[in-house]
Amino acid sequence: MHPGLITLDNVAMLTDLYELTMAASYHEHRPDDRATFDLFVRTLPPHRSYLVFAGLEQALCYLTRFSFNPDAIRYLRSKRLFPSSFLSHLKTIRFHGDVDAMPEGTVFFPDEPVLRVTGNLIEAQIVETLLLNTINLQTLIATKAARVVEAAGGRPVVEFGLRRAQGADAGLKGARAAYLAGCAGTSNVLAGQLFGIPIFGTMAHSFVQAFPSELEAFRAFAKTFPSGTTLLIDTYDSVRGAQHAAIVARELSRHGLRLGGVRLDSGDLITASRSVRRILDVQKLRDVTIFASGNLTEYRIQEIVRRRAPIDAFGVGTELSVSADAPILDIVYKLSEVVSGGTKTPTLKLSAGKQTYPGRKQVFRLQRDGRFVGDILALDHEPVSGRPLLKPVMRKGRLVGPLPSLSSLRRHAAAERMQLPSKLRGLHEARPYPIRIGAGLRRTAQECRRRLLTGVGEPVES
Amino acid sequence: MHPGLITLDNVAMLTDLYELTMAASYHEHRPDDRATFDLFVRTLPPHRSYLVFAGLEQALCYLTRFSFNPDAIRYLRSKRLFPSSFLSHLKTIRFHGDVDAMPEGTVFFPDEPVLRVTGNLIEAQIVETLLLNTINLQTLIATKAARVVEAAGGRPVVEFGLRRAQGADAGLKGARAAYLAGCAGTSNVLAGQLFGIPIFGTMAHSFVQAFPSELEAFRAFAKTFPSGTTLLIDTYDSVRGAQHAAIVARELSRHGLRLGGVRLDSGDLITASRSVRRILDVQKLRDVTIFASGNLTEYRIQEIVRRRAPIDAFGVGTELSVSADAPILDIVYKLSEVVSGGTKTPTLKLSAGKQTYPGRKQVFRLQRDGRFVGDILALDHEPVSGRPLLKPVMRKGRLVGPLPSLSSLRRHAAAERMQLPSKLRGLHEARPYPIRIGAGLRRTAQECRRRLLTGVGEPVES
Repeated sequence: MHPGLITLDNVAMLTDLYELTMAASYHEHRPDDRATFDLFVRTLPPHRSYLVFAGLEQALCYLTRFSFNPDAIRYLRSKRLFPSSFLSHLKTIRFHGDVDAMPEGTVFFPDEPVLRVTGNLIEAQIVETLLLNTINLQTLIATKAARVVEAAGGRPVVEFGLRRAQGADAGLKGARAAYLAGCAGTSNVLAGQLFGIPIFGTMAHSFVQAFPSELEAFRAFAKTFPSGTTLLIDTYDSVRGAQHAAIVARELSRHGLRLGGVRLDSGDLITASRSVRRILDVQKLRDVTIFASGNLTEYRIQEIVRRRAPIDAFGVGTELSVSADAPILDIVYKLSEVVSGGTKTPTLKLSAGKQTYPGRKQVFRLQRDGRFVGDILALDHEPVSGRPLLKPVMRKGRLVGPLPSLSSLRRHAAAERMQLPSKLRGLHEARPYPIRIGAGLRRTAQECRRRLLTGVGEPVES
Repeated sequence: MHPGLITLDNVAMLTDLYELTMAASYHEHRPDDRATFDLFVRTLPPHRSYLVFAGLEQALCYLTRFSFNPDAIRYLRSKRLFPSSFLSHLKTIRFHGDVDAMPEGTVFFPDEPVLRVTGNLIEAQIVETLLLNTINLQTLIATKAARVVEAAGGRPVVEFGLRRAQGADAGLKGARAAYLAGCAGTSNVLAGQLFGIPIFGTMAHSFVQAFPSELEAFRAFAKTFPSGTTLLIDTYDSVRGAQHAAIVARELSRHGLRLGGVRLDSGDLITASRSVRRILDVQKLRDVTIFASGNLTEYRIQEIVRRRAPIDAFGVGTELSVSADAPILDIVYKLSEVVSGGTKTPTLKLSAGKQTYPGRKQVFRLQRDGRFVGDILALDHEPVSGRPLLKPVMRKGRLVGPLPSLSSLRRHAAAERMQLPSKLRGLHEARPYPIRIGAGLRRTAQECRRRLLTGVGEPVES
């Protein structure tokens, strides 16, 4: 019986086999070469006009602890695939590279590196899959969460998706990414414990079903949680549920206590919330809030807000936690430069539909009147205007300084979203954001392409 | 810097807060009640005609190790939410319940419980989120993998999705689920090590780019892996790449070695594979295989197979590992029976669109001529025909016996798929499978509904 859990001790093995076969061949042929790789997204997912970068903290954590344990080496040896000199090297390998990255919460666009690794070719290659897996998840969820938060127009959104998230890690890190991107909290208790995220939760329908009647269930719950509790009122019928909640609220008030809110989790939330609000208001329970959940998306929330339904806060589960309308990021990690025997060679890829930009690059952001007006993707040293977004975060395998707290990242993410051109913040149609390619980068790309096409065009040796 | 990793020591906290608030209230009001919960899928995802059950082994593993560590209790106490008597109870809580489940790899349909928990109400409730999260992921991916394997019509399919899987856990357990459902292996090295799944992998485009020319890259790789290696031939141009691969193959053959295969990872795979096959065949390299990858789906694979493209095996990544066309299972865990003070009460839920079946249930499968012809969802003790699918796997919190090996589960999954009505194995249109409700279950549901509606219909007390 295997739990299938990932630890800091085995996370280096969470990699595609080809990283190790390539590393073995580099170890044989060019052990001292250095390289730069860019991590970026090639295209925007449907309906998205921007992306929100997240997952850096965990990625850096894995890099600082990157190593292959004796069990791993033993397993790899058993495959009879690798030269034993490589396996000896693998035993001692650590990550000593340099990492430059955007701060988490930064908004970014296709082709812009969010993270750049420079180091020994073997080390920089071998961390590819782990970096992609880690950044992909949180960036995907942070991007989706930003849309949901945008739709809610200031009403709190709580992430509720653990049960339908794609696995334990997605449930845990997804809660972090959602909070970073503006959610008010999560239902996920472990995320609360490990990341200090506010946690929310009341009762399920099963709680109501477990009692002989709804009213008895509500009274029992309010006895255990007498202060500011929320009651789920739609197990049988939401109007009758609201009446039962009102009874409990009045009973609480006799003891100087108050009911916090009621929750709707099914059916037509707009109509139901209006009926429920009327019942509560008639009973002078104006400060009892209505919390809504149940298959919510950014679009349904936008509609609820537009139609001024009296819903005070939202719980969003599945749709948020798997980014259900766009569950994939076209995220890649591409070699952009190799340094071999003192010679620096920018590289690119010509495969159909997968072309890349060569050389060590930087993203420069132009701002006017507190709004982002365009980015320039250029070589690192190009003299272009704009604020450079990639900052040093790791040098020779060590962090350059303490990482920002999750709450400061959350403030940064909120500020970033406010600075987007307002048409990019819409939910429906993807809108273009101006990205220019620096003249130096354009030139380098042309030279590189020419060199490769000429090489490829030469007669085949035999 | 927090790694955000899940361990057997903290996995109990991977839960929605409401499981703990409900547990606290049960602890106050009905600490000795017992309950039965069903884990099932409410509706089929788009294009699916059946589901493949997976994830049981990990779920059972978490149940056997279920407990709240001192840090967890300290964190929960700091929230000032729970009665301290409950936190004392939580410290000692373990899972002592009974679990009945279908074997992993079994095909199943909406409303059929795949797993049934009976035990102390608190214990049975508190494991809800963890069970859902664990079963959801693997069932989702196994179901998708079965489609991809079906499309490949006997050609091997390798799961390649770790980098785009939604997190580390999805990458690891997704590889297990894909193998269980018929994939030939995975690129994921950790999945190979922990679960004994065959691992596959060669090189990335970056390897080719890191050398001055493609031919040099191929020669270097073949030197490190001289036996049966695969070369990626589309970094610049796949025809030229095939010619370079042929050169290396001839060089290897002079040393009595042979090239295993070439891989295509972009562009029009049908056209490219035909050109590449011709080049290889002309060079008398008929046994060099062509492996194809690059945004493959079950539909594209079906088309490739239908058009008889000379592709010998497939690598499927993102689309498989997030079940991209249907990334959500409508999976739920519902209370079906409560036993309080010796009285057994079947329960159900009437919420709009979320009705459930009450009572302790069993799924009976009818078979004719080696094919499944229909299922009966009935009460556990109902005298209906058919083979019962839910089997005891845990009694009083202990496994009833050793779990089957992953390879035997894989054989079971293959046999199950072969026994499906052939029209259900198609990829495009969801086809119905006959499911009858047993007379006893129907009667219980009616009585239950009547009781609840009458109760709900009574005048509101005040």
